[in-house]
Amino acid sequence: MTIADWLGAWGGLRDGNLASNAMTGAIKEPPPPVHPYYPLGVAIPNYEANCATVPMLLVSLGGMLASVMLLMGTLALRVSPSLTKSKLAVFCWFVLCGSLHCFFEGYFVFNHATVASSQNLFAQLWKEYALSDSRYLTSDPFMLSVENITVFVWGPLSFACAASIVMNSHLRHPLQIIMCMAHLYGVAMYYSTSLVETHFTCLAHSRPEFLYFWVYYVGFNLPWAVVPACLLFDSVNTLRRQLRSLETIRAGLAGFQAHTPLNNANTTSETKKGQ
Amino acid sequence: MTIADWLGAWGGLRDGNLASNAMTGAIKEPPPPVHPYYPLGVAIPNYEANCATVPMLLVSLGGMLASVMLLMGTLALRVSPSLTKSKLAVFCWFVLCGSLHCFFEGYFVFNHATVASSQNLFAQLWKEYALSDSRYLTSDPFMLSVENITVFVWGPLSFACAASIVMNSHLRHPLQIIMCMAHLYGVAMYYSTSLVETHFTCLAHSRPEFLYFWVYYVGFNLPWAVVPACLLFDSVNTLRRQLRSLETIRAGLAGFQAHTPLNNANTTSETKKGQ
Repeated sequence: MTIADWLGAWGGLRDGNLASNAMTGAIKEPPPPVHPYYPLGVAIPNYEANCATVPMLLVSLGGMLASVMLLMGTLALRVSPSLTKSKLAVFCWFVLCGSLHCFFEGYFVFNHATVASSQNLFAQLWKEYALSDSRYLTSDPFMLSVENITVFVWGPLSFACAASIVMNSHLRHPLQIIMCMAHLYGVAMYYSTSLVETHFTCLAHSRPEFLYFWVYYVGFNLPWAVVPACLLFDSVNTLRRQLRSLETIRAGLAGFQAHTPLNNANTTSETKKGQ
Repeated sequence: MTIADWLGAWGGLRDGNLASNAMTGAIKEPPPPVHPYYPLGVAIPNYEANCATVPMLLVSLGGMLASVMLLMGTLALRVSPSLTKSKLAVFCWFVLCGSLHCFFEGYFVFNHATVASSQNLFAQLWKEYALSDSRYLTSDPFMLSVENITVFVWGPLSFACAASIVMNSHLRHPLQIIMCMAHLYGVAMYYSTSLVETHFTCLAHSRPEFLYFWVYYVGFNLPWAVVPACLLFDSVNTLRRQLRSLETIRAGLAGFQAHTPLNNANTTSETKKGQ
């Protein structure tokens, strides 16, 4: 299933209706949709409605993610008992990102062609989310590209960021900047491609209801703009402060070395030797 | 002009040929294309062939970019005469990026709808480059999204990176990591969206000749994968080394402070006072 197919199907549906309307002179209602996704007429073959309710799906995913974060948070405190609350929160954020990227989005990457007809937990969650962005059920080239990079690069890197916090590594802030940039650029591209396409083709990928557009599409992705922006600011600021400290200390040490009596004595004897 | 329109036009052209072949029973050649772009049949209204030759176009762009880099390089050496050769090279790289992003890609963002029919230098350069990627002449939503972000965010940030090198700023390496990540993610998305779309729809955006696919499409974009990868590695490594130095110096100072006679005397007197 390609973008060309569904645009063709949508064009055919629309043209067919126009032609029959012109012939009969009557306004004819379009046939009832076989699925609830936008844009109307988009081809999603073998679609099967979810059998679980939305609260059930959300509680299942929330429970899984909370368990992973609780387990990993406990493990982190065992490895590094001096971990501050803010560091633990950032650690949990990267564990959350890594889990979603590697497992939830990983499921999509390997099963994008069959999500619409599947009934397992991840497939049903994707079908529910796709009400706000049908590109997840149409093997859209942009979604496949961004999700492949997310699963195979940003997922493991999120776990590396989490590990660097626990290990108090010097790589923590450089890695955090890389990861935050990936999230910020990714979410900017995600929002903008969809909005630009809607602007130029007048076809929206999201259902228009408040829940789907504002809560699912805007709200569920917004944390990946807000949190990385805060973490990016914090990392850049921390690195700037530390590099300034290093410069100040080095300048102080150089001054100290130049003015110590021991150093002056050494310099005098060396001068004498040189003469 | 939208992606839906051109897919529709392509479908119509193909179906028309099939129908006429079926009626006459003869294999009929498709009508001569009105433009040289791929995929065959893609709608590029008001297309006008370039009036300048390719060497003329390349020399003009190369001359402009070389002049800007020469001017900015000279200015940088005036401001900071101790600038090393490697720093000057990185400075020139970011000036090159900033100039291309703000001016060349800026022209595309503001004129994407009329590039095909224009004859000014930048329009002719885009028409030549579009032989390797026709999305630049079809107002493709992905291209518009990525180019808007590039022009308004990465362009100014490239100049900020260049300035931070001349000013020997503590922000240099954090900014360099941000900019390199933007280039790496951008070029990965640029290559992958096109290749994934070709894989799923069998429609290529590049002409198949070696010059257009390998030199223009792959070659002209490759520096934005190779150079940022090297600079990213250098920045992460430099920061790691400097943070390790800071830790070593601080540990050394703490040890020195604990063992100096002056410190011991103070500690003793303080202890006495406390008693």
